[in-house]
This record gives sequence, structure tokens and C-alpha cells, in this order.
Amino acid sequence: MSTRSGILFLVSGPSGSGKTTLCRKLADEGEARYSTSCTTRQPRPGEVNGRDYHFLSHEAFDEKVAAGEFLEHATVHGNSYGTLLSEVTCHLAAGIDVVMDIDVQGAAQVRRCTDAQICIALVDLFVMPPSEEELRVRLTGRQTDSEEVIALRMKNALAEMEHWPSYQYRLISATREEDYCRFKSLLVAERLRVARIQH
Amino acid sequence: MSTRSGILFLVSGPSGSGKTTLCRKLADEGEARYSTSCTTRQPRPGEVNGRDYHFLSHEAFDEKVAAGEFLEHATVHGNSYGTLLSEVTCHLAAGIDVVMDIDVQGAAQVRRCTDAQICIALVDLFVMPPSEEELRVRLTGRQTDSEEVIALRMKNALAEMEHWPSYQYRLISATREEDYCRFKSLLVAERLRVARIQH
Repeated sequence: MSTRSGILFLVSGPSGSGKTTLCRKLADEGEARYSTSCTTRQPRPGEVNGRDYHFLSHEAFDEKVAAGEFLEHATVHGNSYGTLLSEVTCHLAAGIDVVMDIDVQGAAQVRRCTDAQICIALVDLFVMPPSEEELRVRLTGRQTDSEEVIALRMKNALAEMEHWPSYQYRLISATREEDYCRFKSLLVAERLRVARIQH
Repeated sequence: MSTRSGILFLVSGPSGSGKTTLCRKLADEGEARYSTSCTTRQPRPGEVNGRDYHFLSHEAFDEKVAAGEFLEHATVHGNSYGTLLSEVTCHLAAGIDVVMDIDVQGAAQVRRCTDAQICIALVDLFVMPPSEEELRVRLTGRQTDSEEVIALRMKNALAEMEHWPSYQYRLISATREEDYCRFKSLLVAERLRVARIQH
């Protein structure tokens, strides 16, 4: 009576919004599967292949693009990033919810792809810092980066934040605990949707 | 930026589903205002005018019906029950969420009324017992009632339960704590809806 397909939960937000932490915690608690992206960039220290990214050669990545295997993909500063459709659909079909930490362009691609080709229960959320001041504090907090890098991140973050009205839900970040509680509430609520149960 | 009107949260379900307890707890915690109905029936021992019901004479009730003051109303076994539109809209306009414990016919009336006349953010939920067996246990638990009354309640409950697909959300009752957690998640999630923020 209650079998349902999994929900694909897209989470966007600027750097410093805390979205990655939220997504990882949801996955760590076993509430949803974290979708691991593919990338052609080199692993950074501590990054694990298959957990942080699937690290691919440019050739392997391009082959998958040509074969239409990506749900979304993009090239940034000469490196490609993308999510394999198979990475997502196998879990959804098994009734497992999937969470994706994704930028606004990627989210738009996923929406177009799911509208046109495949029937996926999609929920999208935009996570925002509480204020511009707090965003600046959070972006400056990463001591490894120069003034210039921080200024660029700030500019990009503000530009990205203009896209929140395209999303179904918006979460304005408060404390970590409160954010996670509201974040998880979203998934709990969406699972109770009659439209999903009937599908 | 984040001002929003309140949400009208309709909660239906058969006797024994636990919906009344859920609604009252939400109101007790200050998360939403409990909408108090009007009725022409006599108060039962312990019932408080203005808390459990607004107790009205038949004449006063009929006058309000004629004046179009009810969001929904019905007559059951010679007594009338109804919710005043003003009881709900004053809170919603102030950004306070309102929860209504309402039967399926009442919920259908509210949907029609809000579709046609007034712009209200409506969320509806159907609460179900986990199984027919558990429903029987819960209805029998009320030691004050005869076998016949229980059999009638059971029949009515099963008939009412057929209406769950008309609702946006369905909650299958588990434990009281779990039910309340999921119930509250619904409200938390609905408050994050971008469509409501923009209104």
C-alpha cells in the first residue's frame, strides 16, 4: 500500500550556506543516499575516490557525455563535473531517497531532464546565509584563501543567491542544529505526500 | 522579506486515528492556533465554552449561516457544527498558522470555499490508524460505549478512511511521539515553501 519511489532532493546555495554539511549529515544518518559526482579534476588531499567524487579522465568523462549518461554536467575552469543518471535512478527505483549538493545551473539541468525524459519525484531547496554580513564572516573563516579569492567568492555567492525564487523551498540558515532539523523536516514531510504514495 | 500569511492546516481522520491529540499538542506548544468550532449541541461534562466549542443556540447559529459567516458547517443528528470564517482569517492575516480538526465533508467545504472566495494557503492531512485491527482496539478502548456504538464507529471510520487520496498528505499513525514529530515536520516544511514567502 505504501510502496513509493525515492525522492530526488536537490540542495543548492552559495558557498558558506552550509548546504554541504546538511547533505552529508542526512546521508550519514542513513536518511538519504548522497549522490557522488564525477569530475575530471585532480583529487585534493584527503579526498576519496567514490566518496567525495568519482575521479575520471577527460576521455572517460567525454565518452559518458556523448553516451547521454549524465543527468547534469558542466565544465568549470577547464575541469568537468557531472552526475550520472544511473547513480541516481538505481536508488530511487529501490525506494531510497537521494540528496544532491548542486549549483543553480546544475539544478536547472536536472529539472529540464526530469521534466522531459524521466519521471522522478523532485524536491529542491535553496539554502541561504542569514545575512550578507554573516556570509562574509563564513567565507572569510577559511584562512587558506586570499582577500581576492574571498571577494570573488562573495560576488559569486550574491549572484547565486538571486536564484532562490526558482526553488520549491528556501531555508535561511540559523544554527546548525536548527538548520538540520528543518532540513530533515522537509524530507519527512515530502515522504507523506499522497501524490507520491499513489505513484 | 520573509513576511508570510499563516497556513490553514486541515487535519482529518477517523475517530481513533489520534488526530485530535496531534492538533491539540501543536496548539499547546504554540506552533499553531487551534480553531474552535461552533455548535448547537449541549456541552458535555468538562467541556469549556470558547475552548472546546463556541456553544450557540440554534437561532444564533442559523443567523450566522444566513449571513454567510461560516467557512464550513454541517448538521449531524439534529445539532449543527461549524467554523466561523473570521475565527480563521484574523489569525492567518497576522501570520499565525491555524490548525483545524475536521471531518472529510468539512474539509471538502473548506477547499471549495477557499478556492472560490478567499486566497488562503491551505494544507491538508489525513491521519490513519496503522491497521484495521489497531483501529478496533482504539475504538474499543473507550469503555463507556456499547458494542453497537463501537460497531457503528468502526463502520464510519472505515468509510471515512476511503477519502485519504483527496488529501495532500497522509500520515499512518505509529507511536504518539513519532506521529507528532512527523506532524510537526509538515508544518515546518510548509513554512519553507517559496510560493508562500513570495505571497
